Amino acid sequence: MSRESMLDHVVDVISADGMAGLSIRAVAARAGVAIGTVQHWFPTKQAMLLAAMDRVAQIAEQASDARLSRADPDDRVRAVAQLLVPADPASPVSRVWVAFAAYAVADAEVRARYEQLWARTHAGVVGLLAAAAPRAAASALDDAASELLALADGLTIAVLDEPGRMPPARAAAIIRRRVDALLAELGG
Amino acid sequence: MSRESMLDHVVDVISADGMAGLSIRAVAARAGVAIGTVQHWFPTKQAMLLAAMDRVAQIAEQASDARLSRADPDDRVRAVAQLLVPADPASPVSRVWVAFAAYAVADAEVRARYEQLWARTHAGVVGLLAAAAPRAAASALDDAASELLALADGLTIAVLDEPGRMPPARAAAIIRRRVDALLAELGG
Repeated sequence: MSRESMLDHVVDVISADGMAGLSIRAVAARAGVAIGTVQHWFPTKQAMLLAAMDRVAQIAEQASDARLSRADPDDRVRAVAQLLVPADPASPVSRVWVAFAAYAVADAEVRARYEQLWARTHAGVVGLLAAAAPRAAASALDDAASELLALADGLTIAVLDEPGRMPPARAAAIIRRRVDALLAELGG
Repeated sequence: MSRESMLDHVVDVISADGMAGLSIRAVAARAGVAIGTVQHWFPTKQAMLLAAMDRVAQIAEQASDARLSRADPDDRVRAVAQLLVPADPASPVSRVWVAFAAYAVADAEVRARYEQLWARTHAGVVGLLAAAAPRAAASALDDAASELLALADGLTIAVLDEPGRMPPARAAAIIRRRVDALLAELGG
């Protein structure tokens, strides 16, 4: 089995059972292969988590690139903000992200990767906001991007853990309203 | 060793090593007791996590009650919002919360407890906002509380995982600014 196919199973296990359910044995059982086959590609839980995060980040970036073809700079900000909250609590991208964010708290290597990934996302959002509000100060753009990313992260956890109080449509409406207000504040 | 003393060690293990480092063996080693002594109070990882979350929620509620003695309704909202983001990345309250939020994604029992706890926090924030903005519509108060809680949750993760980009003082400034704007929007 190819590394890529195996990785799909790793993402599925984390999505379904979280890091508590992730083991080489669980991935082997789901993939229908021997334990040694999984270990060949992913020797540890940490290696599986890092690879799964790379995978879902790639999926998220492809979705983002597809939306960035929109011509209007305000619409680009809106579209990317929507992508940062899950449209569905079953979204593997969001479920793997939460596992990754929690693991990063106590693991320096995973945290370094988290910082790198979120720094890139933050820079991307700053760039989109700058295109929409070219006269805004750099510090205002930076603060707005930081607020939007934090809001999206918190909404993501609410959608996954409190689907009753925070259905995806509500999370989408909250971030949409905040994006519109920020664009107005920044003078977009 | 009493259940309460043992629980302090459980909180310490989760804070230091996350759920990946939590085991009955690790708590026994840290507490200097036999494995059977830990198992007597906490037979599973899930039981340890639930008890640790109850413990830090109790700590957070005591801190919140202490700040609610402030007379000015706007200041009460500001004070509680500040408590929702960590003043220090080493804060056990925040570190246990992130572990709990991630575990809840794939565990229905932990998720039910998460929903219960966050529903209570949400109701508390709605109540504080209502006192500060008595003429605001119920739906506007509900939306404002949801946004503030999500923003605080996202800022908490940023403080723990990206201390360079998001030092605690920056998170505090971002939520303070948003609270002030929301109070103005709600007509407080």
